[in-house]
Amino acid sequence: MSAVFRYRVTLAYDGTAYAGWQSQADEVTIQDTVEAALSKVYQEAIRVHASGRTDRGVHARGQIIHFDLPRRIAVATVQKSLNALLPADIRVMRAARAPADFHARLSAVEKEYRYTIWNAEVLPPHERLTMTRIRGALDLEAMREAASILEGRHDFASFTANPNRVVESTVRTVHELSLSKRGSVITIRARGEGFLYKMVRSLAGHLIRVGMGRIAPTDTRTILEARERTARVETAPPQGLTLWRVRY
Amino acid sequence: MSAVFRYRVTLAYDGTAYAGWQSQADEVTIQDTVEAALSKVYQEAIRVHASGRTDRGVHARGQIIHFDLPRRIAVATVQKSLNALLPADIRVMRAARAPADFHARLSAVEKEYRYTIWNAEVLPPHERLTMTRIRGALDLEAMREAASILEGRHDFASFTANPNRVVESTVRTVHELSLSKRGSVITIRARGEGFLYKMVRSLAGHLIRVGMGRIAPTDTRTILEARERTARVETAPPQGLTLWRVRY
Repeated sequence: MSAVFRYRVTLAYDGTAYAGWQSQADEVTIQDTVEAALSKVYQEAIRVHASGRTDRGVHARGQIIHFDLPRRIAVATVQKSLNALLPADIRVMRAARAPADFHARLSAVEKEYRYTIWNAEVLPPHERLTMTRIRGALDLEAMREAASILEGRHDFASFTANPNRVVESTVRTVHELSLSKRGSVITIRARGEGFLYKMVRSLAGHLIRVGMGRIAPTDTRTILEARERTARVETAPPQGLTLWRVRY
Repeated sequence: MSAVFRYRVTLAYDGTAYAGWQSQADEVTIQDTVEAALSKVYQEAIRVHASGRTDRGVHARGQIIHFDLPRRIAVATVQKSLNALLPADIRVMRAARAPADFHARLSAVEKEYRYTIWNAEVLPPHERLTMTRIRGALDLEAMREAASILEGRHDFASFTANPNRVVESTVRTVHELSLSKRGSVITIRARGEGFLYKMVRSLAGHLIRVGMGRIAPTDTRTILEARERTARVETAPPQGLTLWRVRY
Protein backbone atom coordinates (compact mmCIF):
# COMPACT_ATOMS: atom_id res chain seq x y z
CA MET A 1 0.00 0.00 0.00
CA SER A 2 1.49 3.28 -1.07
CA ALA A 3 1.32 6.32 1.18
CA VAL A 4 -0.91 9.21 0.22
CA PHE A 5 0.52 12.71 0.65
CA ARG A 6 -2.70 14.69 0.68
CA TYR A 7 -2.74 18.46 1.11
CA ARG A 8 -5.51 20.86 1.98
CA VAL A 9 -5.11 24.40 0.71
CA THR A 10 -7.09 27.60 1.31
CA LEU A 11 -7.29 29.65 -1.87
CA ALA A 12 -8.32 33.28 -2.27
CA TYR A 13 -8.97 34.63 -5.73
CA ASP A 14 -10.21 37.61 -7.63
CA GLY A 15 -12.52 35.89 -10.12
CA THR A 16 -12.72 38.87 -12.49
CA ALA A 17 -10.35 37.46 -15.10
CA TYR A 18 -11.53 33.84 -14.97
CA ALA A 19 -14.28 31.76 -16.55
CA GLY A 20 -15.04 30.35 -13.09
CA TRP A 21 -13.45 27.55 -11.12
CA GLN A 22 -14.00 24.51 -13.29
CA SER A 23 -11.59 23.35 -15.96
CA GLN A 24 -12.65 24.24 -19.51
CA ALA A 25 -11.13 23.57 -22.90
CA ASP A 26 -11.00 27.04 -24.40
CA GLU A 27 -11.11 29.36 -21.42
CA VAL A 28 -8.87 30.35 -18.56
CA THR A 29 -10.22 28.91 -15.33
CA ILE A 30 -8.93 28.91 -11.78
CA GLN A 31 -8.74 25.12 -11.61
CA ASP A 32 -6.62 24.96 -14.80
CA THR A 33 -4.34 27.72 -13.52
CA VAL A 34 -3.76 26.01 -10.17
CA GLU A 35 -3.25 22.57 -11.76
CA ALA A 36 -0.77 24.02 -14.25
CA ALA A 37 1.25 25.60 -11.41
CA LEU A 38 1.21 22.40 -9.32
CA SER A 39 2.14 20.22 -12.28
CA LYS A 40 5.03 22.53 -13.10
CA VAL A 41 6.37 22.47 -9.53
CA TYR A 42 6.11 18.67 -9.11
CA GLN A 43 6.78 17.66 -12.71
CA GLU A 44 3.72 15.46 -13.08
CA ALA A 45 0.01 15.98 -13.76
CA ILE A 46 -1.76 16.82 -10.50
CA ARG A 47 -5.53 17.05 -10.26
CA VAL A 48 -7.12 19.33 -7.64
CA HIS A 49 -10.58 19.02 -6.07
CA ALA A 50 -12.45 22.04 -4.74
CA SER A 51 -15.22 22.35 -2.16
CA GLY A 52 -17.40 23.41 -5.08
CA ARG A 53 -17.36 25.34 -8.32
CA THR A 54 -17.56 29.08 -8.39
CA ASP A 55 -19.06 30.70 -11.49
CA ARG A 56 -17.44 33.10 -13.92
CA GLY A 57 -16.55 36.35 -12.12
CA VAL A 58 -17.26 35.02 -8.62
CA HIS A 59 -14.55 35.47 -5.99
CA ALA A 60 -13.22 33.42 -3.11
CA ARG A 61 -11.69 34.34 0.19
CA GLY A 62 -11.69 30.81 1.58
CA GLN A 63 -12.08 28.24 -1.19
CA ILE A 64 -10.76 24.88 -0.01
CA ILE A 65 -9.07 22.44 -2.36
CA HIS A 66 -7.24 19.18 -1.88
CA PHE A 67 -4.68 17.33 -3.96
CA ASP A 68 -2.12 14.56 -3.60
CA LEU A 69 1.59 15.14 -4.08
CA PRO A 70 4.08 12.49 -5.23
CA ARG A 71 6.04 12.77 -1.98
CA ARG A 72 6.03 14.43 1.41
CA ILE A 73 6.70 18.18 1.06
CA ALA A 74 6.76 20.75 3.88
CA VAL A 75 3.52 22.75 3.85
CA ALA A 76 5.40 26.08 3.86
CA THR A 77 7.24 24.92 0.74
CA VAL A 78 4.00 23.92 -0.98
CA GLN A 79 2.55 27.37 -0.25
CA LYS A 80 5.65 29.29 -1.38
CA SER A 81 6.24 27.28 -4.56
CA LEU A 82 2.64 27.66 -5.64
CA ASN A 83 2.46 31.38 -4.88
CA ALA A 84 5.70 31.91 -6.79
CA LEU A 85 4.09 30.46 -9.94
CA LEU A 86 0.47 31.58 -9.57
CA PRO A 87 -0.67 35.01 -10.82
CA ALA A 88 -1.28 37.64 -8.09
CA ASP A 89 -5.08 37.28 -8.44
CA ILE A 90 -4.90 33.71 -7.07
CA ARG A 91 -3.16 33.13 -3.72
CA VAL A 92 -2.57 30.19 -1.45
CA MET A 93 -3.50 31.70 1.92
CA ARG A 94 -2.79 28.50 3.90
CA ALA A 95 -1.54 25.00 3.23
CA ALA A 96 -1.84 21.98 5.52
CA ARG A 97 -1.44 18.21 5.44
CA ALA A 98 -4.76 16.37 5.34
CA PRO A 99 -5.72 12.76 6.12
CA ALA A 100 -6.02 10.47 3.09
CA ASP A 101 -9.80 10.39 3.46
CA PHE A 102 -10.21 14.18 3.47
CA HIS A 103 -12.16 15.40 0.42
CA ALA A 104 -12.64 19.13 -0.17
CA ARG A 105 -16.18 18.65 -1.53
CA LEU A 106 -17.43 15.50 0.19
CA SER A 107 -16.07 16.30 3.65
CA ALA A 108 -17.51 19.85 3.75
CA VAL A 109 -20.23 20.36 6.34
CA GLU A 110 -21.05 24.03 5.80
CA LYS A 111 -20.33 26.80 3.32
CA GLU A 112 -20.57 30.50 3.80
CA TYR A 113 -21.02 32.96 0.95
CA ARG A 114 -21.23 36.73 1.15
CA TYR A 115 -22.93 38.92 -1.40
CA THR A 116 -21.94 42.59 -1.28
CA ILE A 117 -24.01 45.52 -2.54
CA TRP A 118 -22.87 49.14 -2.90
CA ASN A 119 -26.16 50.92 -2.22
CA ALA A 120 -25.50 54.43 -3.51
CA GLU A 121 -25.42 56.34 -6.78
CA VAL A 122 -21.72 56.07 -7.63
CA LEU A 123 -19.69 52.87 -7.27
CA PRO A 124 -16.14 53.76 -6.13
CA PRO A 125 -13.49 52.42 -8.54
CA HIS A 126 -11.88 50.09 -6.02
CA GLU A 127 -15.18 48.40 -5.16
CA ARG A 128 -16.21 47.81 -8.78
CA LEU A 129 -14.76 44.28 -8.95
CA THR A 130 -16.35 42.95 -5.74
CA MET A 131 -19.64 44.77 -5.29
CA THR A 132 -22.91 45.14 -7.16
CA ARG A 133 -24.24 48.68 -7.26
CA ILE A 134 -27.90 49.30 -6.53
CA ARG A 135 -28.75 52.99 -6.90
CA GLY A 136 -32.02 53.45 -4.99
CA ALA A 137 -32.11 53.01 -1.21
CA LEU A 138 -32.95 49.40 -0.34
CA ASP A 139 -35.51 48.62 2.37
CA LEU A 140 -33.40 46.55 4.74
CA GLU A 141 -36.31 45.60 6.99
CA ALA A 142 -38.30 44.18 4.06
CA MET A 143 -35.19 42.25 2.93
CA ARG A 144 -34.75 40.84 6.45
CA GLU A 145 -38.38 39.70 6.53
CA ALA A 146 -37.95 37.88 3.21
CA ALA A 147 -34.61 36.40 4.32
CA SER A 148 -36.15 34.93 7.47
CA ILE A 149 -38.70 33.08 5.32
CA LEU A 150 -35.86 31.53 3.30
CA GLU A 151 -33.86 30.30 6.28
CA GLY A 152 -34.27 26.65 7.23
CA ARG A 153 -34.90 23.44 5.28
CA HIS A 154 -36.84 24.01 2.04
CA ASP A 155 -37.15 22.87 -1.54
CA PHE A 156 -35.24 25.65 -3.30
CA ALA A 157 -36.22 24.72 -6.90
CA SER A 158 -37.50 28.30 -7.37
CA PHE A 159 -34.06 29.64 -6.47
CA THR A 160 -31.75 27.64 -8.71
CA ALA A 161 -30.87 28.75 -12.23
CA ASN A 162 -31.49 25.45 -13.90
CA PRO A 163 -34.24 23.42 -12.24
CA ASN A 164 -34.26 20.93 -15.12
CA ARG A 165 -30.74 19.88 -14.37
CA VAL A 166 -30.65 16.37 -12.95
CA VAL A 167 -29.93 16.60 -9.25
CA GLU A 168 -30.84 14.20 -6.51
CA SER A 169 -32.87 16.76 -4.67
CA THR A 170 -33.46 20.51 -4.63
CA VAL A 171 -34.02 20.46 -0.88
CA ARG A 172 -31.33 22.34 1.03
CA THR A 173 -30.90 23.69 4.56
CA VAL A 174 -29.98 27.34 4.88
CA HIS A 175 -28.54 27.93 8.37
CA GLU A 176 -28.35 31.67 8.04
CA LEU A 177 -29.47 34.29 5.55
CA SER A 178 -28.78 37.64 7.18
CA LEU A 179 -28.17 41.25 6.20
CA SER A 180 -25.92 43.91 7.62
CA LYS A 181 -25.27 47.48 6.56
CA ARG A 182 -22.21 49.66 7.10
CA GLY A 183 -22.14 53.00 5.32
CA SER A 184 -23.21 52.33 1.72
CA VAL A 185 -22.30 48.63 1.89
CA ILE A 186 -24.96 45.98 2.40
CA THR A 187 -23.68 42.47 3.00
CA ILE A 188 -25.87 39.38 2.58
CA ARG A 189 -24.45 36.43 4.48
CA ALA A 190 -25.61 32.95 3.45
CA ARG A 191 -24.57 29.85 5.38
CA GLY A 192 -25.78 26.37 4.65
CA GLU A 193 -24.88 22.71 4.18
CA GLY A 194 -24.66 23.32 0.48
CA PHE A 195 -26.25 25.41 -2.24
CA LEU A 196 -27.80 24.58 -5.61
CA TYR A 197 -26.49 25.94 -8.91
CA LYS A 198 -26.65 29.77 -8.77
CA MET A 199 -28.75 29.54 -5.62
CA VAL A 200 -26.91 32.20 -3.60
CA ARG A 201 -27.11 34.69 -6.48
CA SER A 202 -30.82 33.87 -6.87
CA LEU A 203 -31.44 34.44 -3.17
CA ALA A 204 -29.51 37.73 -3.40
CA GLY A 205 -31.38 38.74 -6.56
CA HIS A 206 -34.70 38.07 -4.84
CA LEU A 207 -33.73 40.01 -1.70
CA ILE A 208 -32.61 42.96 -3.86
CA ARG A 209 -36.00 43.01 -5.63
CA VAL A 210 -37.74 42.92 -2.27
CA GLY A 211 -35.51 45.74 -1.05
CA MET A 212 -36.43 47.78 -4.14
CA GLY A 213 -40.12 47.31 -3.32
CA ARG A 214 -40.80 45.34 -6.50
CA ILE A 215 -41.86 42.21 -4.62
CA ALA A 216 -43.58 42.12 -1.21
CA PRO A 217 -41.52 40.24 1.42
CA THR A 218 -44.46 37.92 2.11
CA ASP A 219 -44.51 36.86 -1.58
CA THR A 220 -41.29 35.02 -0.77
CA ARG A 221 -43.31 32.16 0.68
CA THR A 222 -45.49 31.88 -2.46
CA ILE A 223 -42.41 31.84 -4.71
CA LEU A 224 -40.67 29.26 -2.51
CA GLU A 225 -43.74 26.99 -2.38
CA ALA A 226 -44.22 27.11 -6.17
CA ARG A 227 -41.00 25.07 -6.49
CA GLU A 228 -40.54 26.34 -10.01
CA ARG A 229 -38.05 28.85 -11.31
CA THR A 230 -39.72 31.78 -13.08
CA ALA A 231 -38.72 35.29 -14.16
CA ARG A 232 -39.92 36.54 -10.77
CA VAL A 233 -36.57 35.53 -9.32
CA GLU A 234 -33.56 37.30 -10.74
CA THR A 235 -29.97 36.05 -10.56
CA ALA A 236 -27.83 38.82 -9.06
CA PRO A 237 -24.58 39.67 -10.95
CA PRO A 238 -21.53 37.50 -10.17
CA GLN A 239 -19.04 40.17 -9.05
CA GLY A 240 -20.89 40.74 -5.75
CA LEU A 241 -20.42 37.12 -4.68
CA THR A 242 -17.55 35.71 -2.62
CA LEU A 243 -17.13 32.16 -1.30
CA TRP A 244 -16.18 33.21 2.21
CA ARG A 245 -15.51 30.03 4.18
CA VAL A 246 -15.96 26.26 4.14
CA ARG A 247 -16.30 24.31 7.36
CA TYR A 248 -15.33 20.65 7.84
CA MET B 1 -17.44 90.33 -19.68
CA SER B 2 -18.52 86.78 -20.27
CA ALA B 3 -19.73 84.59 -17.42
CA VAL B 4 -17.54 81.72 -16.27
CA PHE B 5 -19.27 78.42 -15.55
CA ARG B 6 -16.64 76.80 -13.37
CA TYR B 7 -17.10 73.35 -11.84
CA ARG B 8 -15.29 71.57 -9.05
CA VAL B 9 -15.33 67.80 -9.23
CA THR B 10 -14.14 65.10 -6.82
CA LEU B 11 -12.58 62.20 -8.69
CA ALA B 12 -11.80 58.71 -7.43
CA TYR B 13 -9.67 56.43 -9.56
CA ASP B 14 -7.92 53.12 -9.63
CA GLY B 15 -4.57 54.20 -11.08
CA THR B 16 -3.49 50.65 -12.04
CA ALA B 17 -4.20 50.99 -15.76
CA TYR B 18 -2.94 54.57 -16.18
CA ALA B 19 0.39 56.29 -16.78
CA GLY B 20 -0.52 58.73 -14.01
CA TRP B 21 -2.62 61.87 -14.00
CA GLN B 22 -0.84 64.14 -16.44
CA SER B 23 -1.58 64.22 -20.15
CA GLN B 24 0.99 62.40 -22.29
CA ALA B 25 1.35 61.87 -26.00
CA ASP B 26 1.64 58.09 -26.25
CA GLU B 27 0.14 56.81 -23.03
CA VAL B 28 -3.28 56.57 -21.47
CA THR B 29 -3.52 59.03 -18.58
CA ILE B 30 -6.36 60.01 -16.29
CA GLN B 31 -6.30 63.65 -17.40
CA ASP B 32 -6.61 62.67 -21.08
CA THR B 33 -9.43 60.25 -20.29
CA VAL B 34 -11.42 62.84 -18.32
CA GLU B 35 -10.83 65.58 -20.92
CA ALA B 36 -11.92 63.25 -23.72
CA ALA B 37 -15.17 62.44 -21.87
CA LEU B 38 -15.89 66.12 -21.12
CA SER B 39 -15.11 67.22 -24.64
CA LYS B 40 -17.40 64.54 -26.01
CA VAL B 41 -20.29 65.58 -23.75
CA TYR B 42 -19.98 69.32 -24.42
CA GLN B 43 -18.74 69.13 -28.01
CA GLU B 44 -15.71 71.33 -27.53
CA ALA B 45 -12.18 70.96 -26.17
CA ILE B 46 -12.26 71.31 -22.37
CA ARG B 47 -9.10 71.45 -20.29
CA VAL B 48 -9.15 70.23 -16.68
CA HIS B 49 -6.86 71.29 -13.82
CA ALA B 50 -6.10 68.96 -10.90
CA SER B 51 -4.94 69.68 -7.34
CA GLY B 52 -1.73 67.95 -8.38
CA ARG B 53 -0.34 65.13 -10.50
CA THR B 54 -0.43 61.58 -9.31
CA ASP B 55 2.23 59.20 -10.64
CA ARG B 56 1.78 56.06 -12.69
CA GLY B 57 -0.12 53.47 -10.66
CA VAL B 58 -1.07 55.85 -7.83
CA HIS B 59 -4.75 56.00 -6.83
CA ALA B 60 -7.11 58.73 -5.73
CA ARG B 61 -10.11 58.73 -3.47
CA GLY B 62 -10.51 62.51 -3.41
CA GLN B 63 -8.61 64.12 -6.28
CA ILE B 64 -10.07 67.58 -6.95
CA ILE B 65 -10.22 69.04 -10.44
CA HIS B 66 -11.80 72.14 -11.91
CA PHE B 67 -12.90 73.05 -15.43
CA ASP B 68 -15.10 75.59 -17.22
CA LEU B 69 -18.15 74.58 -19.20
CA PRO B 70 -19.56 76.54 -22.16
CA ARG B 71 -22.87 77.12 -20.34
CA ARG B 72 -24.62 76.56 -17.03
CA ILE B 73 -25.34 72.86 -16.50
CA ALA B 74 -26.93 71.27 -13.42
CA VAL B 75 -24.25 69.61 -11.26
CA ALA B 76 -26.17 66.31 -11.16
CA THR B 77 -26.17 66.31 -14.97
CA VAL B 78 -22.43 67.00 -15.13
CA GLN B 79 -21.79 64.07 -12.79
CA LYS B 80 -24.11 61.66 -14.60
CA SER B 81 -22.94 62.54 -18.12
CA LEU B 82 -19.30 62.13 -17.18
CA ASN B 83 -19.80 58.86 -15.32
CA ALA B 84 -21.76 57.51 -18.29
CA LEU B 85 -18.72 58.05 -20.55
CA LEU B 86 -15.83 57.38 -18.18
CA PRO B 87 -14.51 53.85 -17.61
CA ALA B 88 -15.49 52.24 -14.27
CA ASP B 89 -11.98 52.78 -12.85
CA ILE B 90 -12.51 56.58 -12.89
CA ARG B 91 -15.59 57.98 -11.14
CA VAL B 92 -16.96 61.43 -10.46
CA MET B 93 -17.89 61.11 -6.78
CA ARG B 94 -19.19 64.68 -6.47
CA ALA B 95 -19.69 67.70 -8.69
CA ALA B 96 -20.31 71.28 -7.58
CA ARG B 97 -20.31 74.83 -8.99
CA ALA B 98 -17.22 76.82 -8.03
CA PRO B 99 -16.46 80.54 -8.03
CA ALA B 100 -14.56 81.83 -11.08
CA ASP B 101 -11.42 82.31 -8.98
CA PHE B 102 -11.36 78.74 -7.62
CA HIS B 103 -8.32 76.81 -8.82
CA ALA B 104 -7.88 73.14 -7.94
CA ARG B 105 -4.11 73.48 -7.49
CA LEU B 106 -3.58 77.09 -6.44
CA SER B 107 -6.51 77.26 -3.99
CA ALA B 108 -5.57 74.04 -2.15
CA VAL B 109 -4.48 74.57 1.46
CA GLU B 110 -3.82 70.97 2.50
CA LYS B 111 -3.47 67.54 0.96
CA GLU B 112 -3.78 64.18 2.60
CA TYR B 113 -2.21 61.01 1.21
CA ARG B 114 -2.43 57.51 2.63
CA TYR B 115 0.11 54.79 2.03
CA THR B 116 -1.10 51.26 2.75
CA ILE B 117 1.07 48.26 3.60
CA TRP B 118 -0.03 44.62 3.85
CA ASN B 119 2.37 43.40 6.54
CA ALA B 120 2.12 39.61 6.23
CA GLU B 121 3.46 36.80 4.08
CA VAL B 122 0.66 36.52 1.52
CA LEU B 123 -1.03 39.51 -0.12
CA PRO B 124 -4.75 38.71 -0.63
CA PRO B 125 -5.81 39.03 -4.29
CA HIS B 126 -8.25 41.88 -3.68
CA GLU B 127 -5.63 44.02 -1.91
CA ARG B 128 -2.96 43.56 -4.57
CA LEU B 129 -3.85 46.74 -6.48
CA THR B 130 -3.88 49.11 -3.50
CA MET B 131 -1.37 47.79 -0.99
CA THR B 132 2.35 47.13 -0.85
CA ARG B 133 3.30 43.85 0.77
CA ILE B 134 6.09 43.77 3.35
CA ARG B 135 6.71 40.23 4.58
CA GLY B 136 8.61 40.62 7.86
CA ALA B 137 6.90 42.22 10.87
CA LEU B 138 7.51 45.98 10.89
CA ASP B 139 8.51 47.75 14.12
CA LEU B 140 5.68 50.26 14.42
CA GLU B 141 7.22 52.09 17.38
CA ALA B 142 10.48 52.70 15.50
CA MET B 143 8.46 53.93 12.50
CA ARG B 144 6.50 56.31 14.75
CA GLU B 145 9.72 57.70 16.22
CA ALA B 146 11.09 58.39 12.71
CA ALA B 147 7.77 59.88 11.59
CA SER B 148 7.71 62.35 14.47
CA ILE B 149 11.13 63.67 13.36
CA LEU B 150 9.73 64.28 9.86
CA GLU B 151 6.65 66.19 10.98
CA GLY B 152 6.82 69.98 10.84
CA ARG B 153 8.57 72.47 8.57
CA HIS B 154 11.78 71.12 7.02
CA ASP B 155 13.85 71.16 3.87
CA PHE B 156 12.82 67.82 2.34
CA ALA B 157 15.47 67.71 -0.43
CA SER B 158 16.54 64.26 0.89
CA PHE B 159 12.98 62.98 0.38
CA THR B 160 12.21 64.02 -3.17
CA ALA B 161 13.06 61.83 -6.14
CA ASN B 162 14.69 64.52 -8.20
CA PRO B 163 16.41 67.19 -6.10
CA ASN B 164 18.07 68.68 -9.18
CA ARG B 165 14.73 69.62 -10.64
CA VAL B 166 14.26 73.39 -10.59
CA VAL B 167 11.80 74.22 -7.84
CA GLU B 168 11.50 77.41 -5.86
CA SER B 169 12.12 75.65 -2.60
CA THR B 170 12.31 72.16 -1.16
CA VAL B 171 10.98 73.39 2.18
CA ARG B 172 7.57 71.97 3.03
CA THR B 173 5.40 71.70 6.13
CA VAL B 174 4.15 68.25 7.07
CA HIS B 175 1.19 68.66 9.43
CA GLU B 176 0.88 64.98 10.18
CA LEU B 177 2.85 61.82 9.48
CA SER B 178 1.21 59.08 11.50
CA LEU B 179 0.85 55.33 11.50
CA SER B 180 -2.01 53.03 12.38
CA LYS B 181 -2.38 49.27 12.28
CA ARG B 182 -5.45 47.13 11.92
CA GLY B 183 -4.94 43.41 11.44
CA SER B 184 -2.21 43.03 8.80
CA VAL B 185 -2.80 46.51 7.36
CA ILE B 186 -0.51 49.41 8.28
CA THR B 187 -1.63 52.82 7.07
CA ILE B 188 0.72 55.79 6.86
CA ARG B 189 -1.18 59.06 6.83
CA ALA B 190 0.59 62.15 5.48
CA ARG B 191 -1.01 65.58 5.64
CA GLY B 192 0.68 68.78 4.55
CA GLU B 193 0.42 72.04 2.64
CA GLY B 194 1.94 70.31 -0.33
CA PHE B 195 4.48 67.64 -1.17
CA LEU B 196 7.52 67.54 -3.46
CA TYR B 197 7.86 65.13 -6.38
CA LYS B 198 7.62 61.54 -5.04
CA MET B 199 7.98 62.90 -1.50
CA VAL B 200 5.18 60.83 0.07
CA ARG B 201 6.52 57.61 -1.44
CA SER B 202 10.03 58.58 -0.23
CA LEU B 203 8.73 59.21 3.31
CA ALA B 204 6.89 55.85 3.17
CA GLY B 205 9.99 54.09 1.78
CA HIS B 206 12.10 55.52 4.58
CA LEU B 207 9.60 54.55 7.28
CA ILE B 208 9.43 51.01 5.88
CA ARG B 209 13.24 50.69 6.05
CA VAL B 210 13.15 51.94 9.64
CA GLY B 211 10.37 49.44 10.43
CA MET B 212 12.51 46.64 8.94
CA GLY B 213 15.37 47.65 11.25
CA ARG B 214 17.65 48.60 8.36
CA ILE B 215 17.92 52.24 9.48
CA ALA B 216 17.79 53.51 13.07
CA PRO B 217 14.88 55.90 13.70
CA THR B 218 17.29 58.56 14.95
CA ASP B 219 19.21 58.47 11.64
CA THR B 220 16.15 60.18 10.18
CA ARG B 221 17.43 63.51 11.47
CA THR B 222 20.85 63.01 9.86
CA ILE B 223 19.26 62.10 6.51
CA LEU B 224 16.90 65.09 6.70
CA GLU B 225 19.67 67.52 7.58
CA ALA B 226 21.91 66.29 4.75
CA ARG B 227 19.43 67.90 2.32
CA GLU B 228 20.62 65.58 -0.41
CA ARG B 229 18.89 62.59 -1.92
CA THR B 230 20.95 59.42 -1.70
CA ALA B 231 20.31 55.68 -2.00
CA ARG B 232 19.64 55.60 1.76
CA VAL B 233 16.09 56.73 1.03
CA GLU B 234 13.99 54.37 -1.05
CA THR B 235 10.88 55.32 -3.00
CA ALA B 236 8.07 52.96 -1.97
CA PRO B 237 6.07 51.31 -4.82
CA PRO B 238 3.21 53.36 -6.30
CA GLN B 239 0.28 50.98 -5.77
CA GLY B 240 0.26 51.58 -1.99
CA LEU B 241 -0.37 55.30 -2.44
CA THR B 242 -3.76 57.04 -2.55
CA LEU B 243 -4.46 60.77 -2.74
CA TRP B 244 -7.08 60.78 -0.01
CA ARG B 245 -8.34 64.34 0.34
CA VAL B 246 -7.62 67.95 -0.63
CA ARG B 247 -8.71 70.81 1.59
CA TYR B 248 -9.48 74.35 0.40
